[in-house]
Amino acid sequence: MDMEELLSERIKNTPPSFIRSILKTAVDPEIISFAGGLPNPISFPETSLLHSMERIVKKYGSKCFQYSITAGLPELREYIAKRYNTKFGLNLSLDNILITTGSQQALDLIGKVFLNENDEVILENPSYLGAIQAFSQYKPKFYQIELKENGMDLEQLKLNLNNKIKFIYTIPNFQNPTGLSYSKQIREDMANLLKDKNTVLIEDDPYGDLQFEGSRLPYIGAGKLKNSIILGTFSKTVTPGMRIGFVISENKEIIRNLSVAKEASDLHSNIFSQYLIWDYLINNDIEEHISKIKTLYKKQSSAMLNAMAQYFPKDVKYTTPQGGMFLWVTLPENISAMKMFPKALEKKVVYVPGDPFYIGRKDVNAMRLNYTNADCQTIDEGIKRLGMLLKEKI
Amino acid sequence: MDMEELLSERIKNTPPSFIRSILKTAVDPEIISFAGGLPNPISFPETSLLHSMERIVKKYGSKCFQYSITAGLPELREYIAKRYNTKFGLNLSLDNILITTGSQQALDLIGKVFLNENDEVILENPSYLGAIQAFSQYKPKFYQIELKENGMDLEQLKLNLNNKIKFIYTIPNFQNPTGLSYSKQIREDMANLLKDKNTVLIEDDPYGDLQFEGSRLPYIGAGKLKNSIILGTFSKTVTPGMRIGFVISENKEIIRNLSVAKEASDLHSNIFSQYLIWDYLINNDIEEHISKIKTLYKKQSSAMLNAMAQYFPKDVKYTTPQGGMFLWVTLPENISAMKMFPKALEKKVVYVPGDPFYIGRKDVNAMRLNYTNADCQTIDEGIKRLGMLLKEKI
Repeated sequence: MDMEELLSERIKNTPPSFIRSILKTAVDPEIISFAGGLPNPISFPETSLLHSMERIVKKYGSKCFQYSITAGLPELREYIAKRYNTKFGLNLSLDNILITTGSQQALDLIGKVFLNENDEVILENPSYLGAIQAFSQYKPKFYQIELKENGMDLEQLKLNLNNKIKFIYTIPNFQNPTGLSYSKQIREDMANLLKDKNTVLIEDDPYGDLQFEGSRLPYIGAGKLKNSIILGTFSKTVTPGMRIGFVISENKEIIRNLSVAKEASDLHSNIFSQYLIWDYLINNDIEEHISKIKTLYKKQSSAMLNAMAQYFPKDVKYTTPQGGMFLWVTLPENISAMKMFPKALEKKVVYVPGDPFYIGRKDVNAMRLNYTNADCQTIDEGIKRLGMLLKEKI
Repeated sequence: MDMEELLSERIKNTPPSFIRSILKTAVDPEIISFAGGLPNPISFPETSLLHSMERIVKKYGSKCFQYSITAGLPELREYIAKRYNTKFGLNLSLDNILITTGSQQALDLIGKVFLNENDEVILENPSYLGAIQAFSQYKPKFYQIELKENGMDLEQLKLNLNNKIKFIYTIPNFQNPTGLSYSKQIREDMANLLKDKNTVLIEDDPYGDLQFEGSRLPYIGAGKLKNSIILGTFSKTVTPGMRIGFVISENKEIIRNLSVAKEASDLHSNIFSQYLIWDYLINNDIEEHISKIKTLYKKQSSAMLNAMAQYFPKDVKYTTPQGGMFLWVTLPENISAMKMFPKALEKKVVYVPGDPFYIGRKDVNAMRLNYTNADCQTIDEGIKRLGMLLKEKI
């Protein structure tokens, strides 16, 4: 009766998420959490969504409740294609779009579709822990390429590129966990570098719409590289609870294979939510809604940056994001953010230690802070607590 | 630039679903489809669901729209635990329940958590094609054990049981595709047979509530076998479009591992839909609603049985289900339901040929018919068309 014997190597190889374990334990309302990646609830257009619900049930009736097709609601895919065409000069149709159960499912499907055991994958260093978790299930070899101030270190990428690299996973805008973005130059250079390579470039872009400084840059691969994938989501701009994300690829063969994997994984994503989000988008001014979220997050990130300037010891460094939800704090080399975590919990403030954003590194001297899910006063108080702890340690 | 080189063996090994390909092509409104597994839309309690939507948005606000925990809404899991405790004398708590994105996701997660390549899996013969598709991704060896009138052939099962069998997948009530059910005796004998074996018994039970003849039988493994899993869903009794299913296991270690796999697969299922279904369940008489569906399906299955008696040649055999959504038609041995399919399409009636319900069999002389998604008159007309075709062939 040994469970260990029954389990797959795959699941033994899949790390449970540190963040989600924290979220489960940090129920004490006095704890200030910079750990999660939760959007501010005031960004959910609840009243408009309720109106949309009433409208779609009246208008589409049982179609909102019945089984549906794997690729996703054609109207929603059409909308997404048009939006990206307009914003980025692409030439997409609905067949270039697959609706997924949140972006996390897209990561899982990408692992499913491309990875045999020991295939090679390039990630940024550090990279998003949810992606590491999803890909880990398929037991690839990971290579992490340094993420610099302006994007991936292309010299290092060049040295590591070989025929066994199945895909390169990037978050070019306001990266999770660092908040860093790729410059225009790095984007162009990277596209040139990958032009003749038989590998897939993935641009995971949940935060691109949430740019509160500077202006939006083109994607690296879209319109340029044949095997290019963009991941998008409505989680950060409308609602994460509905779990509606999407995959864009100009290569329909990629979409077709991801669709087969999706069919085997959950048949299709919640069709009611697809109708709902589509109806919301066509009946409301989404750009205005997004600009409200951006104003809010700009204020909150400023509050965090100001508080860090005030309370953190001088040899603690941090990034200054131009958008998105996170920033990255680098501590003096001898300080492990993981080892410091229980002390932080005592002071009732939590963050995500750097470790889970790396493959096989421990006691990293860095942490990820989220600034979107607490008001400015709470942010100030939380950073103050963290600052006190850091001053004790340094 | 070769896509073939980039794809995983896994995805090459995953058959696209025949049914869903049909559903995509069969858009001609004159085609009568017995192919899908669609519930009758009049079984969706649209008005009550809309009331629940208004209530939960008012009552729980942003919680319906925010990220949530992987295991699923505690209130809904509690409800499910209590319902199964009451109905089946089990001793479940919410920790024995994992909410999934439809039952299809549960099948995928089970494959993920238990299967290494070449591990062995026992299926009924024939078995549900969605399960074959989900498990195929993990490249096991399948053994199909004959499904007889009263359940799995236990003599054959005994001969095939060995230490490498990771799990046995069954649909004990109104099986998909055959409509057959396990007798009380077979259930007991099977539990005894598996008592000391280190393998997992899966009872996929989407149709158990839809029993319109006879009385409900206990599960095979629940309460008896340590490594036992029940799969359930709200797709057939409330709405499939919301994609809310669940896994029940008395073994919390199984639930824990499935949860890690789920976290990596889609973080959590749509939380709005979980609130919605829970609110619907506690504010409406679900048993009364289910009894309406049963009355309807009994009528529709009778219509199909009567029409078959009238229009089918005498040497065509079929099952008489006591519940669920399907029945199984066996043709004379020399007739391939797959080869006959284009002719049926010409006559504007479609079904699922037997082939995809078997591992590696072709041109099977059987087909699956669904009777839940057409009214009695349409069923009569469709069976008449099919009968004409069969008379031409035989």
